[in-house]
Amino acid sequence: MTTAEIITIGTEIVLGHIVDTNSRYIAGMLTKNGIHVLFTTSVRDDAELLTSALTIAKERAQLIITTGGLGPTENDITRETVSRLFNMPLILSSDSYTNRPQCADTLYEGAMKLKSIPSGALIIPNEHGTAIGFAIIHNHTTIVCLPGVPGEMYQMLNSYLTLYKTQHPAEEYSIVTRQFHTFGLPEYKINTVIKECDINKKLIKIMTLVHDGIVTVNVATSSLIKEDALRALDAAETILRKALGQAIFGTDDANLEHAVFELLKEKSATIAVAESCTGGLVSDKLTNIPGISEYFLEGIVAYSNEAKIHILHVPEADITTHGAVSAQVAEAMAKGIRKISGANIGIGITGIAGPGGGSEQKPIGLVYIAVAGSNFIEVKKCQFRGTRMSNKLFSANTALNMARLKLMNNC
Amino acid sequence: MTTAEIITIGTEIVLGHIVDTNSRYIAGMLTKNGIHVLFTTSVRDDAELLTSALTIAKERAQLIITTGGLGPTENDITRETVSRLFNMPLILSSDSYTNRPQCADTLYEGAMKLKSIPSGALIIPNEHGTAIGFAIIHNHTTIVCLPGVPGEMYQMLNSYLTLYKTQHPAEEYSIVTRQFHTFGLPEYKINTVIKECDINKKLIKIMTLVHDGIVTVNVATSSLIKEDALRALDAAETILRKALGQAIFGTDDANLEHAVFELLKEKSATIAVAESCTGGLVSDKLTNIPGISEYFLEGIVAYSNEAKIHILHVPEADITTHGAVSAQVAEAMAKGIRKISGANIGIGITGIAGPGGGSEQKPIGLVYIAVAGSNFIEVKKCQFRGTRMSNKLFSANTALNMARLKLMNNC
Repeated sequence: MTTAEIITIGTEIVLGHIVDTNSRYIAGMLTKNGIHVLFTTSVRDDAELLTSALTIAKERAQLIITTGGLGPTENDITRETVSRLFNMPLILSSDSYTNRPQCADTLYEGAMKLKSIPSGALIIPNEHGTAIGFAIIHNHTTIVCLPGVPGEMYQMLNSYLTLYKTQHPAEEYSIVTRQFHTFGLPEYKINTVIKECDINKKLIKIMTLVHDGIVTVNVATSSLIKEDALRALDAAETILRKALGQAIFGTDDANLEHAVFELLKEKSATIAVAESCTGGLVSDKLTNIPGISEYFLEGIVAYSNEAKIHILHVPEADITTHGAVSAQVAEAMAKGIRKISGANIGIGITGIAGPGGGSEQKPIGLVYIAVAGSNFIEVKKCQFRGTRMSNKLFSANTALNMARLKLMNNC
Repeated sequence: MTTAEIITIGTEIVLGHIVDTNSRYIAGMLTKNGIHVLFTTSVRDDAELLTSALTIAKERAQLIITTGGLGPTENDITRETVSRLFNMPLILSSDSYTNRPQCADTLYEGAMKLKSIPSGALIIPNEHGTAIGFAIIHNHTTIVCLPGVPGEMYQMLNSYLTLYKTQHPAEEYSIVTRQFHTFGLPEYKINTVIKECDINKKLIKIMTLVHDGIVTVNVATSSLIKEDALRALDAAETILRKALGQAIFGTDDANLEHAVFELLKEKSATIAVAESCTGGLVSDKLTNIPGISEYFLEGIVAYSNEAKIHILHVPEADITTHGAVSAQVAEAMAKGIRKISGANIGIGITGIAGPGGGSEQKPIGLVYIAVAGSNFIEVKKCQFRGTRMSNKLFSANTALNMARLKLMNNC
């Protein structure tokens, strides 16, 4: 099995100015292609440090993917460093292999640099930008250098991997992984359920991860024969699905809003959302899904009592008697948005996101979430314990999950 | 100057299942404390690979911070690996140093493990969770091991850094950095402006970064004497602010919604938002700010024409004549939300986020954004070229920036 290391190059990463999302993308793509990622490293735009990182990586991995440092400025050192370290002088590639018109002022200064590659390297064309990438082979290690701009890098990595697969057909499926995303059960319960499952834990590796209330179960197995690995994974999936039931809302790249969208499509149902403490997050999540416009009719962010009363027709007496954060108001919001939009399902959310606004009776993180349909209304009282942002996220995910279960169970 | 390496431990990272955000946080905090981060490394939950990563890090850095692998399961290998590598046998710490009630089922299995530390280590208490951290010193290298859960790690890192500062008072401010966030000028123009600024580029390092239409200018300098570095940075700031003017909307942790919030507060003004293609993202961003509820009155996500007409009172004729994606409809949406909410400023956004819905006349990424006040209306036509998600983000940021400039210039 090919072993790999990912090296992301950029002072902005080691200074903590940006989150390195490239590593995750590359790691995911390599894993999908049966490549065993051992390490990811980030390093400053510094020739000496990059040389050291490449030297170490070459000792421990057969494939090295670097991103960053291919631009036209002085801080871009990848071409020169790789050329020097592996003793392959830089040459100008004859064609541009890029697809973007360049600004006049960068054309003269940096164009030469953008087109230069170590002699003997394979060119990886850049369809979305100006910096070409390249791959070299040095003493049985392949080093692939890609730019750091995600939109350019994705396409170039995929081009390289297409080539890789033709060269390594046997490895293509040697590792198979699948993620099952669940909502509604705490992580320790899921782990208890998994422990009791009749799955060979020596062959099938299972790992759980929690984020924003979602518990993801990662299942991985490997085999020299692709079919064997897939068969083992399928068998584990059957057992896990039986044990976890409707708690599983999706696999791999799916999220809760995607699960809701698929159910809306399947049932030809429409949805509308009235939000207070989540401030538009549920609408934002739903409208991230291409094609949602047929099913998502409208969203109201009714932050003020006036908006709750005048737009959503929440009875003023409900607010006076029970307070804006109450089961009654959540219910009235869900029913109100359902009525004014004409949607099949209405969601209402009211709560205290924090950090201010809490009291002894109604502490920060108290959120009421209602889902209304033609023949049902469900109201859930939640007590979250996070920051303003995570209380918003937990509330939004809980609301989406409630809508999902209602849609699944046809009520 | 102390050199450092960050090691994040977790198979989920090198498989690409999660983005490693811990590295960014730690890198930022170390940099703020004058520590020079050279590398960040991520490694599988594998004792042999972690041993190799720690051995390499020890050769090239004086301070190593690890996160992850301190939990109760078999996959958690940090305690054992550090203990073995540095020949410091594990012992049970006498007190728990944690603050969270434990589940009965994890108490028995993992509690011993969670409390064990290499003999001679300094304990780093965990105020928000069950796994204690520790720091050891081995041949002049300090190794600090923290859990991977961000909410627990943050506090523990800060505890350690408080101690670090008392031990390294002179280094406290040896590196100073400041970020200036701009909107409205393309990166190459900003770089041209910076080039012409009378700043000593040998002493003051300047770097630009782009994300979602925002161009961030990172300025860094270092000196043995804190006051010298700060004075140099202040002088550079004065020059940059003069050169970039109102394009700068904030420094360091500030974002566009925060800049709008500060101006709303300063001017005692209120805002309301009518969104179509951004789907609630502007409302969501604004409501991430604590204290916004006094200034943000309401948001409407009017995805359907019906919602635009009935809730926002957009004239049906505007939609029929010019189409839902038009300057006229954006203007009517901004005026409509302003009127129904009673806010001082109304924002209206209509466009085609993609990937479907484009035509030759109205391509994907075409967005009209309007900002309305008592005595002004501004409508901007934008043509973005990204994915659905990035078109939403660019549109939301452009709208927030338009509102910011209107508020700044009192019109």
